[in-house]
Order: sequence, then C-alpha cells, then structure tokens
Amino acid sequence: MSNKTIMDYDTVALDDAKSALVIIDQTKLPYSTEILELTDLKEIWDAIYLLQVRGAPAIGVAAAIGIYLEAKKIGVEETEFDGFYEKFAKAKEYLDSARPTAVNLSWALNRMEQVVLTNKTRSVEEIVKCLHDEAVEIREEDILVCRAIGEHGLTLIKDGDGILTHCNAGKLAAVKYGTATAPIYVGQEKGYSFRVFADETRPLLQGARLTAFELKESGIDVTLICDNMSNMVMRNGWVNAIFVGCDRVAANGDVANKIGTSIVATVAKRYNIPFYVCAPTATIDMATPTGNEIKIEQRKAEEVTEMWYEKRMAPDGVKVYNPAFDVTDNDLITGIVTEFGIARAPYSESLKKIFTMKS
Amino acid sequence: MSNKTIMDYDTVALDDAKSALVIIDQTKLPYSTEILELTDLKEIWDAIYLLQVRGAPAIGVAAAIGIYLEAKKIGVEETEFDGFYEKFAKAKEYLDSARPTAVNLSWALNRMEQVVLTNKTRSVEEIVKCLHDEAVEIREEDILVCRAIGEHGLTLIKDGDGILTHCNAGKLAAVKYGTATAPIYVGQEKGYSFRVFADETRPLLQGARLTAFELKESGIDVTLICDNMSNMVMRNGWVNAIFVGCDRVAANGDVANKIGTSIVATVAKRYNIPFYVCAPTATIDMATPTGNEIKIEQRKAEEVTEMWYEKRMAPDGVKVYNPAFDVTDNDLITGIVTEFGIARAPYSESLKKIFTMKS
Repeated sequence: MSNKTIMDYDTVALDDAKSALVIIDQTKLPYSTEILELTDLKEIWDAIYLLQVRGAPAIGVAAAIGIYLEAKKIGVEETEFDGFYEKFAKAKEYLDSARPTAVNLSWALNRMEQVVLTNKTRSVEEIVKCLHDEAVEIREEDILVCRAIGEHGLTLIKDGDGILTHCNAGKLAAVKYGTATAPIYVGQEKGYSFRVFADETRPLLQGARLTAFELKESGIDVTLICDNMSNMVMRNGWVNAIFVGCDRVAANGDVANKIGTSIVATVAKRYNIPFYVCAPTATIDMATPTGNEIKIEQRKAEEVTEMWYEKRMAPDGVKVYNPAFDVTDNDLITGIVTEFGIARAPYSESLKKIFTMKS
Repeated sequence: MSNKTIMDYDTVALDDAKSALVIIDQTKLPYSTEILELTDLKEIWDAIYLLQVRGAPAIGVAAAIGIYLEAKKIGVEETEFDGFYEKFAKAKEYLDSARPTAVNLSWALNRMEQVVLTNKTRSVEEIVKCLHDEAVEIREEDILVCRAIGEHGLTLIKDGDGILTHCNAGKLAAVKYGTATAPIYVGQEKGYSFRVFADETRPLLQGARLTAFELKESGIDVTLICDNMSNMVMRNGWVNAIFVGCDRVAANGDVANKIGTSIVATVAKRYNIPFYVCAPTATIDMATPTGNEIKIEQRKAEEVTEMWYEKRMAPDGVKVYNPAFDVTDNDLITGIVTEFGIARAPYSESLKKIFTMKS
C-alpha cells in the first residue's frame, strides 16, 4: 500500500468475493491511507456514523452496497420471501438511522428495497442477485451523474477563475469527480486551470483534511483558509464563483449542506459572487417543501471541544451547540447544478422541470 | 498557585519591585494557569508576538509597562537625556513592531514617548519616574474605560437577552471587564443574566480557550459554537445583539477586528440583529480614513494546518492564506460603543464628536 496514493483508490467499492464494502477511512486522512474492508452491518453503520465514509453520494453508494451484503447473508438463512424481507427491512431501517440529514442514504436504501419488492415472485437467491446488480448500478450512476454535473458546472466558469468551496463535496464524497469539485476536475481534463480556495470546515475539518488533500494530489492549485476567512478572500476579488455540494435540496430550492454553507452564501451575496449548489437529483427531495422541514443532525460536543478526541481546546464542561448542517435559503442560491442541467429561481418550478427530464 | 483560579489574577500587571511585567500566559489557557514575570524587552516582544498577552487594550497596557521597564534599565546607564532618549526610541520602535494591526500598541508607546519629550528638561531619573506613573495610569484608565463601555453597552440590551461574540474581547483582552464582554459583566453585577454564544474563532481559538473559559469561570451562561455556526444560532432566533471588540477603527467607522468579524456582521444584517463594536477611543484611529488603509497582519500557515504545532490537520505543503484580521464595513455596524457613549452612522461625524467629548 505504501507506494500507492489516495488517488489510486475508489472512495467506495464492492469486493463481492470477500463480501466486503471497501472504503478509504476518511477519518485517517490526510495522515495515512487506510483501506477498510467492512463485512458486518454494524461495522458499516459505524463507518457511516463515524464519517469513515461521508458525503451524500458516497453514503448512498455505501448504503446500497451495505444492504446488498447484508441481504446476501440473510439469503443464506432465509430462503422464503417473507422471512427474508422481514430481516431485510429491519437491516434497512437500522442502516437508515446512521445519519439523519443526507437524503441519499434513504434514497439508496429505498431503491434497494424497491428491487426486493418488485421481484418478490422470484427466489430469494435471484433477489439477492438483483440487489447486487442494483448496488453496482447505483455506484456506476454516481460516476456518470458527477461527470454530467461537472460538464454543466463548467459552463458557469472560465479558465483561470478563482473558485471557493466549503467542506468536501469532492471525489472523496462520491466515487469519482465529486459534485462541487466536478466542474474543476472536468475542467482540468480539458486543460483549464483554476485557483481554488478550500474552507477548512470546522469542526471535523473535511475541507482541510479532504478537499485540500484531494485537490493537491490531483495537481490543482488549492489554498486552504479557515471558515471565517471567506469574506477576506471574496473582498480581495479572488473568487469568481462558489461551488458547494449538498445533503438535501427541498422542493423550494432551500438547501441543507455542511454547517457554514449558509454563511458562505450570505457573504457571496454581498459581493455579487455567484453561489452554485451541485446536486445530483438523488439529493433533491420534492417531498420536503422547504428548508424548515429538514431535520438537522446535532452531533457531540467533543467534536468542537477536542481535536480528534485527543486534546481539549475548550474549558471542561462548557456547553456546546454542534449542528452538522445548516439551511441555505433559496434566495442566496444562483443556481442548482444537477446532472440534467442547471435549475434557477424560481426553484419550485425549475426543480420540477428537472425531474420531468429525469423520467 | 494550585488553589487560585484565573479570575484571581489581573491579565496584565506591573511588579515594580521585581522590575517585571506580570501576565497570564494566554497560550496555555484553558489547560493551565501560568503566570509569567517578564523582565527582558525581547521576552516582552515575544509575549506580544506569540499572543501570550493579546487583545488590543491588554497589548497597550503591556507595551506601556514594557517600555517603562526598559527605560528604567536604560536610565541606569544613560543619565544624560540624549543618550537616554536615543535608546528609548530604539526600544520603542522595536516593541512597536511586535503586532502591526492593533493601534493600541503604538498608541500606548506614543503616549509614553510624549512623557519623555515633555519632561526633557528634567533628570533621566525623574523621567523614568514619570514613565512609571504613566504606565500605571494607562492601566488604571483601561479599567475605567472598559467599565464605561459596559455601562453604555448595557443600555442596548435587556435582562435575559442572547448575545453573540467573536474572538476574545473579554477580561483576558484587557485588565478587567474587557470591551465586548463589559456589558455582560456590568449587567451581571446588576443582577442581569444573559445567554452568551461564543464563536470559537479559528485558527487560534481565542473564543473557545479564552471567552468560553472566562465567562464560564464568571458564572455566565455560555455556549461554544464553531465560527461557521453563527448563522444557525441567529436563524434560530437565539441572538438579540452582537458585541465584538476591535483592533482599529478607521475615521469612517470601518473596523478591523479578528478574522471572521465581518462575516458575523454580514450574517447579522440578514437577520436584522444589531451588531455593536466595543471600542475604547484609544482604538479609534482618526488618521486612518477607511478600512482599506488598515494593514492586515498575515500570520504563519502552521496556525491553520497544525493544532498547537503538534499535529497536522492538513496535507503537507498545502498553501495557506492566514490573515489575522478582517475589515467590517461601516454599513454593517449598528453602533460603536466607546467610553464616552455610542457612535452611530454617519460615523465620520459621530466619531469626531466622540473625540470632542474626550478632549
């Protein structure tokens, strides 16, 4: 492993021979590249909860592979549909509880469940085979979807532009290309060069550890800043566009994404810098009317008060508020870049239109 | 020392018998309370540069005491004015180079130099005595000025309000009361209780280490958040007013303060939450026309990429932009709270008026 770099690995993969979900342990980056082979449902739940695999698209793919692997195990014991489905549904519900905000998790699990339900007349063995194919397809689709987002996003910027991004919606958040980074990577393939500013993204520093890392490894000009420096960078005139990913888009175009996203959008508006959300349609939740209905995950105080649970950075026993996401109101968003094109305000209409292109 | 708490010490003091500047080493908080007795000019320069003493008012007091102590030493060797003043001026210039953004540093040093120049007909021994008295007076004034800021600031809020602050403009940034925290402490003395949100303030975490610490030690209800969570806290309706300190106020009311301040102000404007800057008049620099002329200190990449120079949090060799301050435009500021009252827009007029009250 020592002479391979992170770029030699896919973020999420299936090793069917080993019955394993294979992921890069993202909590270990950028210190070391550790590849995990997870075979147990609890391990997979933990990997999602502990952010060893993270990023809405990657979570969806990991969940699809995870539930397939569990179904494979269940199928050995339960050869009748009812017994199989009962255990499958329980496992699905369990995995779905690992993270509350990203819609891709339940989106992928629901899609896998649909495979079970539409094939209920077949043998359990055949259903498991269908689940395998669906998980593989979800993974392949992610690559194609991110690539398409990159192509559409690239029409919004030009060679030499300064781009700011928050958190990691990069290759490490998906399988390849990422979402927010897709325009940058696709542009790079075409010979464009960009100057990218990566917000470090407290408390878990996905920007510093992951985005700065993967862009630098890819040979892209990246500068790391603390989250509270984005105003300076924009004020200096260094940013032509902002691209961020998202965890859930509501039907009105409000967007839940990593905590701090709404702040970047608010500052960008002051400087009239376009703010784009890169969103696979799997991330768009037409059943959620507005951002107010999106459940925001609250995480442990120690993420804020301790660095990697090693050294305290705040007084003992201090109260902490630690929401993992925030909602960016649709009026702050210049466009939502999907695999089918770019939705613009009014989003309640444009997002509906995107979905008609999908079907 | 073990049974004393941080609240038993003044942030900056003079021990004349020991010829020492006595400070709490703020880089060690909140882990341990270490009291430093600094006798050497280079040590004092380092203490200011390394942020062992920080916060605009505290830096001014430390510099005044520091230059007095140096003058005391010089006076032993140089008993003639010319020789004394030459070395004094050199020491003053050296101390002044420790931090470029806070105006209090040069303000305090210039005030000390004025004492030398207006007493040039006296003996060097007498001049040194005058410098002692001036340093002590600058320190006493700081306490009175902060108290007055607290009284004026308190008229802007009511019992039970939610207050957000950024960085540390607290007791630990001054001698007592602090600036941004003065309304809270003065309110506490009068029986008010507030709910305070403290931005952790990356990269050096003055909010987490110092503000959360001193407020908690003082029995004030404080909740720590990451800098990128301020939008959520405001959106939730938990914040009635924002108080921050400042390092330099320009004549037009633009304010240089800890990096990220301008972001808090931009977000506050979106929610119509009043944003107040607490500024001793020593911090107001009428010779600087606007924020554009304020020199912004750039600091080392390692502050962002490493936690306390121990463990890297970002890839090796990544580029970093690390401005220590930013400029908040005057249109985002609801009021500037000084010891003589509250200046409001248009600041070019109201700040001038404040200065007429001063003289």
